[in-house]
Amino acid sequence: MTALGSPGATLAAIRARGPLVHNITNFVAMDLAANALLAVGASPLMAHAREEVAEVVGAADALTVNMGTFSPPWVEAAELAAGEARRLGKPWTLDPVGVGATGFRRENGRRLAACGPSLVRGNASEILALSGLAAGGGRGVDSADTVQGAASAADALARRLNCVVAVTGPVDRVTDGERVARVANGHPLMTRVTALGCSLTAVSGACLAVEPDPFLAALHALALVGVAGEQAAATAAGPGSFRVGYLDSLHGLTPDALEAAARLQEGDS
Amino acid sequence: MTALGSPGATLAAIRARGPLVHNITNFVAMDLAANALLAVGASPLMAHAREEVAEVVGAADALTVNMGTFSPPWVEAAELAAGEARRLGKPWTLDPVGVGATGFRRENGRRLAACGPSLVRGNASEILALSGLAAGGGRGVDSADTVQGAASAADALARRLNCVVAVTGPVDRVTDGERVARVANGHPLMTRVTALGCSLTAVSGACLAVEPDPFLAALHALALVGVAGEQAAATAAGPGSFRVGYLDSLHGLTPDALEAAARLQEGDS
Amino acid sequence: MTALGSPGATLAAIRARGPLVHNITNFVAMDLAANALLAVGASPLMAHAREEVAEVVGAADALTVNMGTFSPPWVEAAELAAGEARRLGKPWTLDPVGVGATGFRRENGRRLAACGPSLVRGNASEILALSGLAAGGGRGVDSADTVQGAASAADALARRLNCVVAVTGPVDRVTDGERVARVANGHPLMTRVTALGCSLTAVSGACLAVEPDPFLAALHALALVGVAGEQAAATAAGPGSFRVGYLDSLHGLTPDALEAAARLQEGDS
Repeated sequence: MTALGSPGATLAAIRARGPLVHNITNFVAMDLAANALLAVGASPLMAHAREEVAEVVGAADALTVNMGTFSPPWVEAAELAAGEARRLGKPWTLDPVGVGATGFRRENGRRLAACGPSLVRGNASEILALSGLAAGGGRGVDSADTVQGAASAADALARRLNCVVAVTGPVDRVTDGERVARVANGHPLMTRVTALGCSLTAVSGACLAVEPDPFLAALHALALVGVAGEQAAATAAGPGSFRVGYLDSLHGLTPDALEAAARLQEGDS
Repeated sequence: MTALGSPGATLAAIRARGPLVHNITNFVAMDLAANALLAVGASPLMAHAREEVAEVVGAADALTVNMGTFSPPWVEAAELAAGEARRLGKPWTLDPVGVGATGFRRENGRRLAACGPSLVRGNASEILALSGLAAGGGRGVDSADTVQGAASAADALARRLNCVVAVTGPVDRVTDGERVARVANGHPLMTRVTALGCSLTAVSGACLAVEPDPFLAALHALALVGVAGEQAAATAAGPGSFRVGYLDSLHGLTPDALEAAARLQEGDS
Repeated sequence: MTALGSPGATLAAIRARGPLVHNITNFVAMDLAANALLAVGASPLMAHAREEVAEVVGAADALTVNMGTFSPPWVEAAELAAGEARRLGKPWTLDPVGVGATGFRRENGRRLAACGPSLVRGNASEILALSGLAAGGGRGVDSADTVQGAASAADALARRLNCVVAVTGPVDRVTDGERVARVANGHPLMTRVTALGCSLTAVSGACLAVEPDPFLAALHALALVGVAGEQAAATAAGPGSFRVGYLDSLHGLTPDALEAAARLQEGDS
């Protein structure tokens, strides 16, 4: 698993360093995003006021931007924060929630993508829309397209933005435009809990803070969240108890257990 | 139970069609509202920016508006969305949270009621306040009045707005100004969990999306949420585990089990 | 325990009177703050629109202000609400979340402290920053300083603002500038769940509403939340199930059990 790094080592580094992750995220996701970061051993900070976002980025180890319920002041603050992250060489993740759903979201997605993310994390429909390959698309914030169907759009987006693109689905696919790998962890119940994907985006910030290669950081975040989801699903009675168990698992997962359960694979098949 | 339709059939239709429900709701309720919709099989979308709400309504199957923590931009966005729903003939629910509590909320309630909701869902104090029969009233967002004490106010409101009015309490009462029915499901722990009523409002959007008669849709939403609450209460150790079990039950409830447990009654007694 | 009052009697009074607590709090904390208040038997109301906050304070028994994700309109609304509380002689709590983190938060903290809180509740870093004894400080919203290291800053702040200052940590310390007491309840898992401290701030509002001495009210809130945390930790598998059990315990805790488990101590050692 050398070429794909060690998810366990990344988790151990998060636990050891406790990176500060600045999140500008949607109203639905804030609670779960902050709790997921605390559970893995990182320190979350939510701040969106334009008066302070640049200063918060200066203190943080990574930034995540999730445009789920954005209104214009939030977009402006996210642009300020992302620009500062770029200027300081700090990694940041863009989660283009529902980017294909409205003209407003398409414009927000374009503006934020232009700020140079280290990682773009979305479902197939979102990546297709952001990549400009899909004319419209996007039903709510769920994905109506397949991960593999978004592969070439993801590759093109990664090359155009010079970043890593992670497309999540039953089997996740990550590319930096050159390398490709897949992560076969996770469970269908994860699609029945709101903000689960947003919590992955938050956790990716913690991984980016400790793993300098964003391609590996994205893979390890997907494995970490996916394995925690599998563990939670094993005893969950439904989406309510699944969400509880997911946070317990993120907290209790050891680096060795993660390493053993992670299902990373190079290439497209 | 013919005159009151089949709650089980409504749930089955939600599961089969996965309607997209657009919610403009308060900050406290967003998480539970989205999770309740996912649990019953619908697809939630939260969006409040004035730049996109009309377009979101265009893509959605139903809209719900919950004015709990509204500030003026949110009221304006809700008016835009409700107006578009009306124009397109799409159903929408108004939840007038704490409408009697302040002059600002009274004005917001008046403005939103004027947009022509398909369904108004509130506790007795809220319906009394909105109906203009109560001079002031409303202690916090809890109800200080009784469901039966709000019956004539609810009837008048339903006739004035040409909509369905659901007053929730120990036994819920639904009217369209002509028909009256009651739902005797639920559990007292539901009043000890924030946003439980808001999640009912969200679920009502899913029911309105698949059941064309809003009177029946309201009854079925009340039965669905009430039965899930009863199941959750059976094993809950308190409001924390109740909330978890409530989502599990919404997800696990079968149409047959709902049909068997629903306690719908025609008339006022 | 006479000089430190009776936590059990305070809890019993909350259950008997059901005080209405108005909260102007951050987006992350709203859900848990409202649920904690409901669980202890109080009635929460979240409202932040400048158009209504003064009227809400007029109806409420206490106010809490938590500046976690504030932007300028929220600061302005909190100032209006706090001023009205002061004018009406109603108690209010200030939670200066991350006050040392940015210049914007420092300015917000200064402005809100100038509104005359009854109680300031923060971790050691926050109290040091607010007291002006720390030049910068504050890593995220966690505490990098010790409770005892913030003791003189807390005393000075309490005297300057003529209020009670509660510094939370492994052992909490409360002072009104004259009296000092400590609370040795709680559990380390409480630092791994977002908004736990914010929920304490909300619960302090309920205690202030029924206990006229804010020094005692602060102690009793700390004991109540700390004992609930201990009970929850006894069976929790991690932060997810801990949060669930915490709300169950807040709801199920009897005044006698609280009285027996509370570990209040006079003085600094």
